[in-house]
Amino acid sequence: MAEPKETPLMEKIVSLCKRRGFIFQSSEIYGGINGFWDYGPLGAELKRNVKELWWRSMTQQREDVVGLEASIVMHPKIWEASGHTSTFSDPMVDCLGCRKRFRADQIEARSGTAYSYVGAFDEKLWSQAAIAGITGGTEPSADFLSQLTDDVTRHNFAKQLLSSSEPEIRAIGKDLEQQTISKYQCDIPFAVLLPSGKAADSARKIAKQYYRQRSVANPVPRDERSEEVKNSTHYCNECGSLLTPPKQFNLMFKTYVGPVEDPESVAYLRPETAQAIFAQFKTVLEVSRQKIPFGIAQIGKAFRNEINPRNFTFRSREFEQMELEFFIRPDEVVETICGKVANAADIWKENIEPRTSNAEHPTSGSQPSTLNPQPQPDWGWEAWHKYWIEQRIRWYESIGLPRASLEEYWQKKDELAHYARATVDILYKFPFGTQELEGIAARGDFDLSQHQRFSGKPMGVFDDELKAAWARLEEAKTKELGQRYHDARLKYLAQMGVAAEESSKQAREDADCLARGNYIPHVIEPSAGVDRLILALICHAYCEDQAPDEKGHPETRVVMRFHPRIAPIKVAVFPLLKNKPDLVNKAKEVRDLLRPHLTVFYDEAGALGRRYRRQDEAGTPFGLTIDFETLGEKGPELKDTVTLRDRDSMKQERVKIGDLVPLLLEKVR
Amino acid sequence: MAEPKETPLMEKIVSLCKRRGFIFQSSEIYGGINGFWDYGPLGAELKRNVKELWWRSMTQQREDVVGLEASIVMHPKIWEASGHTSTFSDPMVDCLGCRKRFRADQIEARSGTAYSYVGAFDEKLWSQAAIAGITGGTEPSADFLSQLTDDVTRHNFAKQLLSSSEPEIRAIGKDLEQQTISKYQCDIPFAVLLPSGKAADSARKIAKQYYRQRSVANPVPRDERSEEVKNSTHYCNECGSLLTPPKQFNLMFKTYVGPVEDPESVAYLRPETAQAIFAQFKTVLEVSRQKIPFGIAQIGKAFRNEINPRNFTFRSREFEQMELEFFIRPDEVVETICGKVANAADIWKENIEPRTSNAEHPTSGSQPSTLNPQPQPDWGWEAWHKYWIEQRIRWYESIGLPRASLEEYWQKKDELAHYARATVDILYKFPFGTQELEGIAARGDFDLSQHQRFSGKPMGVFDDELKAAWARLEEAKTKELGQRYHDARLKYLAQMGVAAEESSKQAREDADCLARGNYIPHVIEPSAGVDRLILALICHAYCEDQAPDEKGHPETRVVMRFHPRIAPIKVAVFPLLKNKPDLVNKAKEVRDLLRPHLTVFYDEAGALGRRYRRQDEAGTPFGLTIDFETLGEKGPELKDTVTLRDRDSMKQERVKIGDLVPLLLEKVR
Repeated sequence: MAEPKETPLMEKIVSLCKRRGFIFQSSEIYGGINGFWDYGPLGAELKRNVKELWWRSMTQQREDVVGLEASIVMHPKIWEASGHTSTFSDPMVDCLGCRKRFRADQIEARSGTAYSYVGAFDEKLWSQAAIAGITGGTEPSADFLSQLTDDVTRHNFAKQLLSSSEPEIRAIGKDLEQQTISKYQCDIPFAVLLPSGKAADSARKIAKQYYRQRSVANPVPRDERSEEVKNSTHYCNECGSLLTPPKQFNLMFKTYVGPVEDPESVAYLRPETAQAIFAQFKTVLEVSRQKIPFGIAQIGKAFRNEINPRNFTFRSREFEQMELEFFIRPDEVVETICGKVANAADIWKENIEPRTSNAEHPTSGSQPSTLNPQPQPDWGWEAWHKYWIEQRIRWYESIGLPRASLEEYWQKKDELAHYARATVDILYKFPFGTQELEGIAARGDFDLSQHQRFSGKPMGVFDDELKAAWARLEEAKTKELGQRYHDARLKYLAQMGVAAEESSKQAREDADCLARGNYIPHVIEPSAGVDRLILALICHAYCEDQAPDEKGHPETRVVMRFHPRIAPIKVAVFPLLKNKPDLVNKAKEVRDLLRPHLTVFYDEAGALGRRYRRQDEAGTPFGLTIDFETLGEKGPELKDTVTLRDRDSMKQERVKIGDLVPLLLEKVR
Repeated sequence: MAEPKETPLMEKIVSLCKRRGFIFQSSEIYGGINGFWDYGPLGAELKRNVKELWWRSMTQQREDVVGLEASIVMHPKIWEASGHTSTFSDPMVDCLGCRKRFRADQIEARSGTAYSYVGAFDEKLWSQAAIAGITGGTEPSADFLSQLTDDVTRHNFAKQLLSSSEPEIRAIGKDLEQQTISKYQCDIPFAVLLPSGKAADSARKIAKQYYRQRSVANPVPRDERSEEVKNSTHYCNECGSLLTPPKQFNLMFKTYVGPVEDPESVAYLRPETAQAIFAQFKTVLEVSRQKIPFGIAQIGKAFRNEINPRNFTFRSREFEQMELEFFIRPDEVVETICGKVANAADIWKENIEPRTSNAEHPTSGSQPSTLNPQPQPDWGWEAWHKYWIEQRIRWYESIGLPRASLEEYWQKKDELAHYARATVDILYKFPFGTQELEGIAARGDFDLSQHQRFSGKPMGVFDDELKAAWARLEEAKTKELGQRYHDARLKYLAQMGVAAEESSKQAREDADCLARGNYIPHVIEPSAGVDRLILALICHAYCEDQAPDEKGHPETRVVMRFHPRIAPIKVAVFPLLKNKPDLVNKAKEVRDLLRPHLTVFYDEAGALGRRYRRQDEAGTPFGLTIDFETLGEKGPELKDTVTLRDRDSMKQERVKIGDLVPLLLEKVR
């Protein structure tokens, strides 16, 4: 996929984020640090609200999910089991010329004339050395010899050492010879790509520069050849020099735990929060009084040493994830217990009507149009997968991202990870392109199986319903189900490179466990990125419209139309005038009345219109103004009422102070 | 301070934490990883509640504090400015014998007889080599010579190389000689401490072992000497061998950011959250419409590579902090504006009565006995410091740690960091000893000054009140105040090693800024550890009392008496019997009624008494039982009422279902 580019809209959004304190560059006073971001006062509140809503909807408001908060640094074996140690890497190439490092798959193909060299010799020294007999020559002039005495001595010693019968001594001789000769020549091949038709001299210039970096003071590149190349990705996009072959570069940040830096103390910053959930699956199951199906949810930081962090906070090196691992029965177990596995397509055909999305910018508590069906015992992985996709989209709707702003992308068969049965990406239409917010993967029993193999600890569960149902089945049926379970286990073990004989034995044992009520649960994983969601919410909330300025002339207004649920500040309180103590005191009273219940911002400085405008940019959905009516100066019927202004419609209504708390709480719920 | 030891009570608490899912060892299935912990379902909720209460009381419920959420990995210059790169380290020693590494300050002094050796030779080879002339000897026997030819050749080459005029060649010769001789001897000194009176043979045995590790196959330790030593910390507490001299070991976890591991890409996991606040101070000030005095609060993970993690989660390598940096005017500025600086002792004498602490285990919304005085413009750093100590203790009271369970420890002058004017530690009486929960430090303008010097970016603020007040002062007064400010700045610069001339110029310039309304704010820092607070709350809540078992006999009950505010589960809902659908359905109705408002746990399995007991261990303050009365079977007056059981008193009352939400919300607020 081509990389999305900066857009004028993104520039405006980034600038607003900084100006209003949503997001800053980390360590800005020291010039920043690429791929790391800080959330300012408004951003921190926004993020807290979103995380809290996810947590509440995922754990507290459900019967079947519990929470976990695991450490960022874990035992390194976890990353062996998960496959991150061996495969969580990008192919990297180094440029021989400018020495920069690039992702191999991001090198653009180029065409032109490639000039290659097998090495270089030092123009001055070579001739002198040749004369001295070091590099092969004839008679030395006495003059040169006097300068070269020590090189000659060295060279002679090297020859002597090389004739030794002791390999260690020969190795020293080899080194010594190399040290001597390397003063006169360099044997490393080099090449550079030039646009066709450009003079070969430019290539030689670049090659000379290269060999000079390799300590040849006056290099003459040797054995020049040239050839036309088409669409080659072997040359640096910046300087044209040859790139090294791709080498895998692991994206996990590495550190050492404990006082000694040795291979045994290596540890990694977790590249995802999911693995802690798998590693603690059995412990959590034991303490939580849950039974399959149930889930474990976690929110936390993760780290990836991205080569090319980009798109503001979208792809950063430190980020936060909200992950649920929802453990379910394998289909064979469901079928054993319920006699069948429900057809996922049918369930949703019956229950869900085609919907139109909610209003683009809902201002208060809009609910999804229909309900997701209630989970049933006969659901297999497909139904659970579909259920979680629906749940997650509904959640995005509930925080102000309408369905129409999202896209469901079902990964094609050849895009799926080898262990995934299906993966759906939920994409958001960012200004820089449509990109992933969340992936919902049906991961089978891959993860728990891996941890079982790597830790030697059983990851299976006992299910009394399975045991009872199995005993009631006819033999033909148990054979059929056992075979299916066996085949799936065998496929997994073979894919993991377990030897044929052992795989076969293990798969048979695993299948035999069914009769005893034992199996390894499968998992559905909705995995969302907090930071990219925050960015989506900011992009979606950003809006320019027209509003009257102080003199009533229309001017462009920037307004962040956050859903009230997530808005960093829920309500702003303004005394009409700063220099009237009665107004100020009354406004502070209102502020103190609301503060225990809501995030309140009190502002008395400047013209009221400008104070509104500041809150519009902060995305504060409601503004309260305390005026002379409030004080009862315009008649008793308006005493103790305030104007309540709606951010989006800019409409104002008068509300009794006594009604404010329940009214506002209802609007932001 | 001697290290506290494990206690029987701590063992019970650790076991309960694991059994009930409060806290697990990280990566347990892989044998754990020392110093890292995971929070299970109950622990995660407990931690969330505590952090949320801190955040609310620190930011949302105050006018003068805003939040920040900065990245864990920051620019490495931040740690140069803060001093962590150079001084955040422990002195470490390595044992020559067992090769273990220890903190130098944790080595216990020992007395005894020390045996020392200058090296060792190889018994067999030495005699042979001596004969061959390598180690200095006489005539070789032809027999040995034939075996030693290559050593001799090597030795002869080495001699030749050593006579060269070229230093590089001499170095090779030296290496070669060493390689040859090292087969026959080792020149590294070694020593071992034995209890007085123990036979020297034991020492020789340990020394031989040491030299064997150094590749001497049949070592004879050379030049043994012995001496009596008293209270020496130079010997290993475990094996008695000599320790290396102490070397500073930095406690920051190090990693590399970007594709290349070179010194320029080194970065650290933050060892504290505070520095991000200082680094972003100006940015936050600009966007937040705040004026001094105001604060920035942050909650987040921090990491320290502790050599000796201990006391369960108390000292771990990954932990969470809740830090506030509260920026105030320097006393000279307060005096300029207000004409005086209020006397801190007087303020609290007038406002605060001596109090007795709250009940040991408050069950609902107890409030601190008196209010902390409202901040005033004439408060200097001492008043602000005292204010924040009071605020913080009141907060601990509000979440269930009574004042009597805490201790205020005022650091002595010689314990203070050089930049601190005063630091108070708030200690909790843990079962393993009285230890710090939070430090409240008056740090002067040290941190902002450091970042100003290291980043070159101004960290001062403009204060219009100062400018106006300064202009009104008499010259003598401005001179006096300017001088005091100057002297403080000069002291700081001198302490930081800035050259005398530059310091003097800079301090003068800084003092001149006052007249223009500019200064660098001072800071009060209440800094709390989340994990140790959670541990304190768990320890404090843990309680064993007597409760009747199913047959009415008293049995020991374990109950976690968490304050309802922080309890992971607020209310449990039980149908009296599992096999009566009417009871179960009604109970689920009640559960669904409460769930949008509170964390609810529904449990229908087992005898009611056992279900109560499980919730007692989880610390759930309220239990609701749905029985036949609820269904109206015992008369209409009890229809739709439930029994509400109080965890601590075990008293039950009947409550109407319709009253439950407001009643419970009031109790857990």
